[in-house]
Amino acid sequence: MGWQVYLSGEIHTDWREHITRGAQAAGLDVTFTGPVTDHAASDDCGVAILGAEERPFWHDHLGAGVNAIRTRTLLERADVVVVCFGEQYRQWNAAFDAGYAAALGKPIVTLHPEQHDHPLKEVDRAALAVARRPDQVVDLLRYALEGTLPTTHGADVSTAPSAA
Amino acid sequence: MGWQVYLSGEIHTDWREHITRGAQAAGLDVTFTGPVTDHAASDDCGVAILGAEERPFWHDHLGAGVNAIRTRTLLERADVVVVCFGEQYRQWNAAFDAGYAAALGKPIVTLHPEQHDHPLKEVDRAALAVARRPDQVVDLLRYALEGTLPTTHGADVSTAPSAA
Amino acid sequence: MGWQVYLSGEIHTDWREHITRGAQAAGLDVTFTGPVTDHAASDDCGVAILGAEERPFWHDHLGAGVNAIRTRTLLERADVVVVCFGEQYRQWNAAFDAGYAAALGKPIVTLHPEQHDHPLKEVDRAALAVARRPDQVVDLLRYALEGTLPTTHGADVSTAPSAA
Amino acid sequence: MGWQVYLSGEIHTDWREHITRGAQAAGLDVTFTGPVTDHAASDDCGVAILGAEERPFWHDHLGAGVNAIRTRTLLERADVVVVCFGEQYRQWNAAFDAGYAAALGKPIVTLHPEQHDHPLKEVDRAALAVARRPDQVVDLLRYALEGTLPTTHGADVSTAPSAA
Amino acid sequence: MGWQVYLSGEIHTDWREHITRGAQAAGLDVTFTGPVTDHAASDDCGVAILGAEERPFWHDHLGAGVNAIRTRTLLERADVVVVCFGEQYRQWNAAFDAGYAAALGKPIVTLHPEQHDHPLKEVDRAALAVARRPDQVVDLLRYALEGTLPTTHGADVSTAPSAA
Amino acid sequence: MGWQVYLSGEIHTDWREHITRGAQAAGLDVTFTGPVTDHAASDDCGVAILGAEERPFWHDHLGAGVNAIRTRTLLERADVVVVCFGEQYRQWNAAFDAGYAAALGKPIVTLHPEQHDHPLKEVDRAALAVARRPDQVVDLLRYALEGTLPTTHGADVSTAPSAA
Amino acid sequence: MGWQVYLSGEIHTDWREHITRGAQAAGLDVTFTGPVTDHAASDDCGVAILGAEERPFWHDHLGAGVNAIRTRTLLERADVVVVCFGEQYRQWNAAFDAGYAAALGKPIVTLHPEQHDHPLKEVDRAALAVARRPDQVVDLLRYALEGTLPTTHGADVSTAPSAA
Amino acid sequence: MGWQVYLSGEIHTDWREHITRGAQAAGLDVTFTGPVTDHAASDDCGVAILGAEERPFWHDHLGAGVNAIRTRTLLERADVVVVCFGEQYRQWNAAFDAGYAAALGKPIVTLHPEQHDHPLKEVDRAALAVARRPDQVVDLLRYALEGTLPTTHGADVSTAPSAA
Repeated sequence: MGWQVYLSGEIHTDWREHITRGAQAAGLDVTFTGPVTDHAASDDCGVAILGAEERPFWHDHLGAGVNAIRTRTLLERADVVVVCFGEQYRQWNAAFDAGYAAALGKPIVTLHPEQHDHPLKEVDRAALAVARRPDQVVDLLRYALEGTLPTTHGADVSTAPSAA
Repeated sequence: MGWQVYLSGEIHTDWREHITRGAQAAGLDVTFTGPVTDHAASDDCGVAILGAEERPFWHDHLGAGVNAIRTRTLLERADVVVVCFGEQYRQWNAAFDAGYAAALGKPIVTLHPEQHDHPLKEVDRAALAVARRPDQVVDLLRYALEGTLPTTHGADVSTAPSAA
Repeated sequence: MGWQVYLSGEIHTDWREHITRGAQAAGLDVTFTGPVTDHAASDDCGVAILGAEERPFWHDHLGAGVNAIRTRTLLERADVVVVCFGEQYRQWNAAFDAGYAAALGKPIVTLHPEQHDHPLKEVDRAALAVARRPDQVVDLLRYALEGTLPTTHGADVSTAPSAA
Repeated sequence: MGWQVYLSGEIHTDWREHITRGAQAAGLDVTFTGPVTDHAASDDCGVAILGAEERPFWHDHLGAGVNAIRTRTLLERADVVVVCFGEQYRQWNAAFDAGYAAALGKPIVTLHPEQHDHPLKEVDRAALAVARRPDQVVDLLRYALEGTLPTTHGADVSTAPSAA
Repeated sequence: MGWQVYLSGEIHTDWREHITRGAQAAGLDVTFTGPVTDHAASDDCGVAILGAEERPFWHDHLGAGVNAIRTRTLLERADVVVVCFGEQYRQWNAAFDAGYAAALGKPIVTLHPEQHDHPLKEVDRAALAVARRPDQVVDLLRYALEGTLPTTHGADVSTAPSAA
Repeated sequence: MGWQVYLSGEIHTDWREHITRGAQAAGLDVTFTGPVTDHAASDDCGVAILGAEERPFWHDHLGAGVNAIRTRTLLERADVVVVCFGEQYRQWNAAFDAGYAAALGKPIVTLHPEQHDHPLKEVDRAALAVARRPDQVVDLLRYALEGTLPTTHGADVSTAPSAA
Repeated sequence: MGWQVYLSGEIHTDWREHITRGAQAAGLDVTFTGPVTDHAASDDCGVAILGAEERPFWHDHLGAGVNAIRTRTLLERADVVVVCFGEQYRQWNAAFDAGYAAALGKPIVTLHPEQHDHPLKEVDRAALAVARRPDQVVDLLRYALEGTLPTTHGADVSTAPSAA
Repeated sequence: MGWQVYLSGEIHTDWREHITRGAQAAGLDVTFTGPVTDHAASDDCGVAILGAEERPFWHDHLGAGVNAIRTRTLLERADVVVVCFGEQYRQWNAAFDAGYAAALGKPIVTLHPEQHDHPLKEVDRAALAVARRPDQVVDLLRYALEGTLPTTHGADVSTAPSAA
């Protein structure tokens, strides 16, 4: 039975493709889900379907509701939730997803550059792993599903402790 | 993995068929469920199976119990619950289903004409989208499953805000 | 430790006062809660606090949200939920509360005239008792809390079955 | 029985004091809780109690864990969660708290200036009210607890709709 | 997606076969599960696998534990729980299963002769239908899954009330 | 903070008084709750409050609903559930309560003579202790609350094992 | 629908292979899951993927987090949890898994030699069966899935009690 | 409203008294609970109350059940769970409690010497803080309840980072 992994967070870089391709190359039995990443569609889905709103607040409110039909369903189905914080934007919805996933008891992996470590400390504390690069997320998933470690990158494990 | 969508509410118009056909035409991976919509069967299922009752109250009580075996099971299995309020009848069971779904945390879409907006405000507040026409429900499901927006109806999105 | 009883439903007759006074006269250790019953305040609380909305839909939406801060909290605290359906109005919010309470597993008592028996059959089926008069609700609460029955109204119990 | 209200979010302005004083002036039966708002203590609580860490990541990790002992407990006890986003800082922990509270089904009130409306749209959609000023939060709590509306600010309610 | 129906209760008559054959004849997409109905195996499974016990109490204790590995798992997987009380034996485990299923919110159908109506009133009250014959259980399942009523037995429905 | 102990089961002997008096004599901070033990009132509460029913089935159904308002509320509040099976009657409601409590994860103590050991094996397996006499229940509660053992009855503990 | 069985605990002997082969030989529809049993990989997975840590505490902390992505997911999916305590090592993580599974209400089987009976008494009390040999676990699973008992080992059942 | 803190784990040293006295000296509004720490009583409570058992396994089984009435109730009531692992004994019940508390989402603090870091890594990973000395637990509770840090021990905080 495959795993379902929800990829939450920023939609301006191609981190999702890196992870998806990496998992595919590794032959992992994983299905990736996530929010709609077409920014214009994501912003306008509410008014495009339900009718225009003059006030931007309600324009956004409609859209956030429509997006939540998708995201909440997929988030609750997920076995693992990966949350990516990019270098720009506030990405409060990514942190919101992380809190939502934490309260549901989902295993969380965060993915962000070191510069965000301090403001993300509460989110990272609720995660089981903090990754810096998409390939590390692929490695985490391979280990979780198949129990095998990468051979070429990360730490040299030859001097690692051995006892029980 | 497909979605299961429960269509709750009025059983006197063909709104369910509109949605079902629309989703089929759009090729969506959705299974629709709902209450028994044969009104006579729905009213009499209790006494037809378990034996006649003289008092109408118990006639209804038996029937409501038998219907609940179906509806509660399907409602709890649903990924999304659509609740339709028609122009006639009180449809308290539709509102009951909405409350039940809300407490379970299911994404809810309501479908009703504007004339009911005020008395349905509590139900609508618990919904993620309020639709006026069955084709909007199809559009919502297509967006939720596939992330694509309709091109011809709804608002003109070309002037929509763009930021993050 | 006293009981908390949420009185949901119609706000146009004085059924709440009947129950409250009856419980007080019976000396029951019960605290009654419920929605705001000042109709104008309940309709306008959203815009009165958060600012005016031109469209009636959002006027209602704001108000329903503000009312839900109160009603959802009190409903979840309640030990018993009484839901009253009057002779007028659609009272979908009452049926919504009943569904919400049912999904939470709360004991439900409905209160309504016989004329609504058929359309309320699903709601009544989810209830543990269907009362016709407020004094019956008081009797139910007295029995639930103190185990004593009324002596003067209801059925003559002298011919009731006795075995185990 | 009083209400417990958790005040989550920014710790650089005095919005908590405004709300606390307002609720006290209104005589509301509310207990306010929240994170430790002494910024230095909040940042250093981990190492101050458990011992120094060289790497800032683990310094933060220790502190986030220690703070979570407090915040998670108080958040789960809360009847209502108010989440404030100030004009500065990323405040991902505030959005995280909002997501956590949403998954627990807590009524949420957000408090932030309009400039954040678009990036906060997902968080606001999960809230029951979006306030702009602390006095509005006090008004919301007064209405939730006592059912009374403010008389001098907000919308003119004289033209509000009336029926059901 | 088929339904899973747990058949709890007496193991001395062939009621399970009646239901299973009836559902098969009706072509219902149902999988039936239940406890081990080989009485000797059910009584001795504990000691047969884990080793003999001198005291009958622990003999039974071991067996009840081993049976619970099966029954608890299948009960929790079930969409519907049917509980049968035969004419003999105390069948406390059937009533225990009914209570367990009730607390989990499973739809319950009881099956027993009228003579047990009074002592089973609490169990029946927690059920959505009380059947007297296995074929009625099959009819209930057909209605729940396919929405069709039996044509030849049960009440004459021609005089049933019709409106809403 | 005191404990709440629900005493479920037979209502024809004075086992509840034995436990209550014993706990009082021991000065334990325990509140005992339970069903209404006035057999006639318990059987007739439904019709006495809600009106007569001709058919005994509905007479019982009404009564079971009314009793459940009390019993379900108190059962869910309980810290410990004691279930007593006497020498007579089928007491299916006691077994039902035990199953309900088990699914809620409540600590269960059963109280019954050895003659019922075999048919009660499933219920006993779900219990944390099987007592034979009410004074043992008092001893269990004293130990649970205060950590002290009885000095005069039960086993001679002087030869008990000591290690860890 | 097959069962998923999580094999928790010691990773230094081949008990998992015994159970897996036995179940396969018996043709049981069971999928076995468990932690990564390559000891070096399990100890170093954190640093191997996420980067080296100087302090052994954080080395272990990273690894435990990465392992938990796998183990928590598989544990929550399991129908049955088998926990093995070998003759050596402290195996606190096995006891931790047992407590975790117990709180989730999973059926637990423990597997350990008699010498650990006293210190494992709390864990065993939360289990539905305590096995001494892997073949007993296979027998338990065969009985749970297929209702058949082993014929050659364990107790002689010919003198077992038979009544109800 | 005070906090309830469950002190789980070893019963051979006086760590509980250290914490209790420290919290009292600090004037914290905390109630401490825990298992019965009289080792002989804890081992023999089952047979002392319920009657002797010849086989040590059942002697322990009875005792573990009786202890669980207390420990499970107090553990579920706790706001925070502190789990101490001493230098001796296997203390599997402490690890079991930690797993149980983790699945319930309770904040966990572990207390143990560094020598156990490696075998306790899974338990520590599920904790929000790992303490070495009882006074650190008191400091954690003071910070959690009152937001104040100790002034004399732990790290020098003057050079701690300051940003957000």
